[in-house]
Amino acid sequence: MFKVKFIPENTVVIAKLGETLFDAARKAGIFLDAPCNGLGSCGKCKLKVLKGSVNFRKSHHITESELAQGFVLACNSKINGDITVEVPAIQTSALSGMKVEDLAGTKDQQIIDTVINLAAENHILFNSPMQKAYMELDLPSLDDCISDWDRIKRHLLKNISYSEALCRLPILKKIPHVLRENDFHATVTYFAENSERIRVINIEPDDTSDRLYGAAIDVGTTSVAAFLVDLYNGKIIAKASAGNAQIKYGADVINRIIHATKKNGLQELTHAIIKETINPLLKKMRQETHISKDDISVMVASGNTTMMHLMLGVYPDYLRKEPYIPAFLSSEYLKAADLGLEAYSESLLYILPSVSSYVGGDITAGILASGLWSEDQNILFMDLGTNGEIVFGNKDFLLTCACSAGPAFEGGEISSGMRAAPGAIENVRIDRKTFEPTIDTIDNQLPLGLCGSGIIDAIAEMFRAGIIDSRGRLNRNLKTRRIRFDEYGIGEYVFAFRGEYYIPKDITITEIDLENFIRAKGAVYAAVAVLLNSMGMDYSGIDKIYIAGGIGTNISMNNSITIGLFPDLPVEKFKYLGNSSLMGSYLTLRSTDARKKAEDIASHMTYLELSTDSSYMGEFISACFLPHTEIERFPTVKDPRKII
Amino acid sequence: MFKVKFIPENTVVIAKLGETLFDAARKAGIFLDAPCNGLGSCGKCKLKVLKGSVNFRKSHHITESELAQGFVLACNSKINGDITVEVPAIQTSALSGMKVEDLAGTKDQQIIDTVINLAAENHILFNSPMQKAYMELDLPSLDDCISDWDRIKRHLLKNISYSEALCRLPILKKIPHVLRENDFHATVTYFAENSERIRVINIEPDDTSDRLYGAAIDVGTTSVAAFLVDLYNGKIIAKASAGNAQIKYGADVINRIIHATKKNGLQELTHAIIKETINPLLKKMRQETHISKDDISVMVASGNTTMMHLMLGVYPDYLRKEPYIPAFLSSEYLKAADLGLEAYSESLLYILPSVSSYVGGDITAGILASGLWSEDQNILFMDLGTNGEIVFGNKDFLLTCACSAGPAFEGGEISSGMRAAPGAIENVRIDRKTFEPTIDTIDNQLPLGLCGSGIIDAIAEMFRAGIIDSRGRLNRNLKTRRIRFDEYGIGEYVFAFRGEYYIPKDITITEIDLENFIRAKGAVYAAVAVLLNSMGMDYSGIDKIYIAGGIGTNISMNNSITIGLFPDLPVEKFKYLGNSSLMGSYLTLRSTDARKKAEDIASHMTYLELSTDSSYMGEFISACFLPHTEIERFPTVKDPRKII
Repeated sequence: MFKVKFIPENTVVIAKLGETLFDAARKAGIFLDAPCNGLGSCGKCKLKVLKGSVNFRKSHHITESELAQGFVLACNSKINGDITVEVPAIQTSALSGMKVEDLAGTKDQQIIDTVINLAAENHILFNSPMQKAYMELDLPSLDDCISDWDRIKRHLLKNISYSEALCRLPILKKIPHVLRENDFHATVTYFAENSERIRVINIEPDDTSDRLYGAAIDVGTTSVAAFLVDLYNGKIIAKASAGNAQIKYGADVINRIIHATKKNGLQELTHAIIKETINPLLKKMRQETHISKDDISVMVASGNTTMMHLMLGVYPDYLRKEPYIPAFLSSEYLKAADLGLEAYSESLLYILPSVSSYVGGDITAGILASGLWSEDQNILFMDLGTNGEIVFGNKDFLLTCACSAGPAFEGGEISSGMRAAPGAIENVRIDRKTFEPTIDTIDNQLPLGLCGSGIIDAIAEMFRAGIIDSRGRLNRNLKTRRIRFDEYGIGEYVFAFRGEYYIPKDITITEIDLENFIRAKGAVYAAVAVLLNSMGMDYSGIDKIYIAGGIGTNISMNNSITIGLFPDLPVEKFKYLGNSSLMGSYLTLRSTDARKKAEDIASHMTYLELSTDSSYMGEFISACFLPHTEIERFPTVKDPRKII
Repeated sequence: MFKVKFIPENTVVIAKLGETLFDAARKAGIFLDAPCNGLGSCGKCKLKVLKGSVNFRKSHHITESELAQGFVLACNSKINGDITVEVPAIQTSALSGMKVEDLAGTKDQQIIDTVINLAAENHILFNSPMQKAYMELDLPSLDDCISDWDRIKRHLLKNISYSEALCRLPILKKIPHVLRENDFHATVTYFAENSERIRVINIEPDDTSDRLYGAAIDVGTTSVAAFLVDLYNGKIIAKASAGNAQIKYGADVINRIIHATKKNGLQELTHAIIKETINPLLKKMRQETHISKDDISVMVASGNTTMMHLMLGVYPDYLRKEPYIPAFLSSEYLKAADLGLEAYSESLLYILPSVSSYVGGDITAGILASGLWSEDQNILFMDLGTNGEIVFGNKDFLLTCACSAGPAFEGGEISSGMRAAPGAIENVRIDRKTFEPTIDTIDNQLPLGLCGSGIIDAIAEMFRAGIIDSRGRLNRNLKTRRIRFDEYGIGEYVFAFRGEYYIPKDITITEIDLENFIRAKGAVYAAVAVLLNSMGMDYSGIDKIYIAGGIGTNISMNNSITIGLFPDLPVEKFKYLGNSSLMGSYLTLRSTDARKKAEDIASHMTYLELSTDSSYMGEFISACFLPHTEIERFPTVKDPRKII
């Protein structure tokens, strides 16, 4: 048994001979930002050995210079004695909370306005299925000796437009006391199961009808964001966000699914999303607003199909194995307490319905909130987060597909990539003559890596400046200290030198990164092309493009076109929606009409499976260029040097 | 602290100074048959002090001779030192299990035949809401990649006549594994919520469609009886009965309600009925038939309104306080596991709807099973158990009332009374000349007391033999050793002398017992009279009389008429139904039509509150005679000595 000490936390854990540093870190409660979850493929779990040594295999993820400084891959390092290691700042920073504004993407009033406009235009009523009714009941007498529950039911059915009322057992148990506590004046909370029937889920003495709250939750693979909503006026009274605590079990859905197949893996993932992520968010919002747990009566959540499986505790492995079968796509309202959610014991949870294994309820929610389903014009909806989902349609049809773009848009699989956290380079300009970069970081902190929008800028600028060619290969003839090559001849461009900023390592984009990112953007572009082809259309058929998802607020549409991620259409046609999944959840929370519309959307969306589409591979290969093999598809990008 | 030892159990418990023997017995797990639950009023909790002594107040329940033998009332005896007491055989015997035949009242085949005939005549289908379906699903492929649950739903909705299917969360979690365990061949158990919608509550690999069981339970105040039913063919595959373990908290509903208002009282009562009574019955039936807990998918229970409150854990105190308000009368299907019932985790429980605070689901079940609701003729239905409930009606109307007859029909409030357990005197004849009795006991055991039918016989025979007059007073002029008087001049007739049978005490009926029983029968008769009056009818309007309930199989209709318990109608018009509550539960278990009919019956029954009826007290006083003050109402009883 050996001691393993982690700096700067100064945490010490005991480890066995042969155990990896990765496992020791997990035991120490230090969660390394490792998308591959310790499989050795992502190269992200770098730690610096300060004292002692480890047994490790050589990896291309560790350069000679890093090796000299003591860097090792935690997952590839077996403990052979007492050791002290340092966890680099980037590891902890990448997991720190992002700002709510970034996650929600839009401000409260904008959300409310958007939703109100959308509802008004489409005759969607704000008819929340969860309601309260204050009752002053007639007192019982020998001439009117019906049961307490029948008395409540009689009053309810006389005063609201339902024909049947049911009561949950725990409420039945409360009724005799509550009614007599305040002279048969009481407030019931009821849930409209359908247009005929309500179910009473709470009873309180006296008039509490002004306290009725709900939560809308976007369950992202990377981040989770939530609103606490006053269901009377629709006001967003609190909001919160945090990284999805499942991240310690893998960065993307595939690695999470693999973890779910391990012993206790599924329970760990469910615990991570419910107990370690959503419950703390709910608690934070409750504390900010001094709202009791018992006043939260309903919740709506949206997320991709895998997230919904993991949240409900349903085995997800068949999602990733051909023929890619989910266990379920939709569910009726569930008891939130059955999932371990911290809310009123009888509160209900609705999850937005998914469309297929890789087009989830977050997309349904996004389409709902975007209003695409009510438009005459043809709209392309692209959700770029940890994966890429695309919808094309209007009020008459909805076509969708998902492409395995991987986590590149959120900084994954890029050697200096990171999520849009403080210190991430989010904007890049490169001087056309000196080839020197100008960088902006989130919160103006010391640069730690490149986030999605930064990578897009970087590639577009490198391309325009002639630093890279259409294949993403570095120009070997340029005279600049920014470009260098390793012993295998693989080149990289340096955006920030270690010495320049006193940061742990240089921030670069390598030719391997470029290849990875170009493949990701090629996958998205090809998906759009196939979707349009299947309708017998080309880009001229797109009237508007909505961008949603974790790619971030600061994405440059121009640069995205330049690298061939988006079709070459006028920037006026683009609209950044922000977190449309959360907006859709919020709307569903407030409106049964909206919930029905969401179910309608999910059931009417035609899913195109790209892996079986014969044209997809050709489109993908053609799109793995900057901007594209067929340069005529990008008329404004024809000769990059002439644009700027 | 003192030691208290109970013989013959040889159980020793530690008790404090001043604690009662009643409490000590309870701690020792010895449940004394005390209807008043230790209030000192019933005089039943007699124990014999063998060694040591107690502090006690004198009580009219203990005679001088009993006192001399060491008998004390446990509830009235405070411990003041180490003591050894004997628990008389009558105490333990009264609580021992009765025979199923006695409780069910009728044999299996009779029940099935009755139910089948009733159903056939009334177009009631045996459409159990709980069904199984074996499915051989199409295997998923890239061209048919709907979710597992949608695949099941597609199959179900294609093959059965419902339009909507829902799935419980725990089942959703099982689906992916179960489907793949046996090549997408599986069996689902589903519950039809209504004519449109089913809810899947179980899934098992392969074909298990031949294993679908349910339980029907009659929850009586005194005894609980149950059937285990094969839902495919309706066969009763096991049956069991036991005393209601709540008896230790009081013999009748009023005492139980009072106990429920004490600290933890309600929980104790709920625990007693669910965990100590019903679960052991279910276990016994499962073990006999080798049926797994998980194969019991649905249960139906019937009981009086108080029993249903206590079973569901609902506070019952307002049932006994004017204006006598129940918390509820009916409920939708509940999750049996939520009540702590031992069955499949998602199995459902239905309770038959009650009519009012004192006319419960047992009466609804009885009316259902009796077929009264479908008859042209006017039928009087009398359920004589711990209380008396009466229904009068036919297919066009149903009128009901409850009378507080007390537990006399089951041997309560009678000094030598006991329930219909082995050793109870159930038949009595008295020689008209010698005034010597001939007695029959249940199972031919040594006589321990008189049960309901025995008391009826005894009173009728004493009346016919001229031993008592119309007021229930003993003839003071007869020469017989059987009649004797105490120091206050109160007389008693001895059915069995202690010395004759080597039993702990003489078995007698006292003038106080006679007064009590006459009051009980008067209450029932008066209720019938008021019910008929309210319809503007007299006895000639009754075409048939159905007798049900715990009064027992061996009740003599003739003797019941003689004492004026039943109206004086030809005995051919009487029919003893047995445990009609259990029969109604059984029918409801097998048929949704029957369940709807029961709800219809409960909602259409007109309840007459006797306590507010101006004529009731007059009728009651007139009926407190043998057979009645107005002797012309009992033409066949006019001169008792001439009948036999």
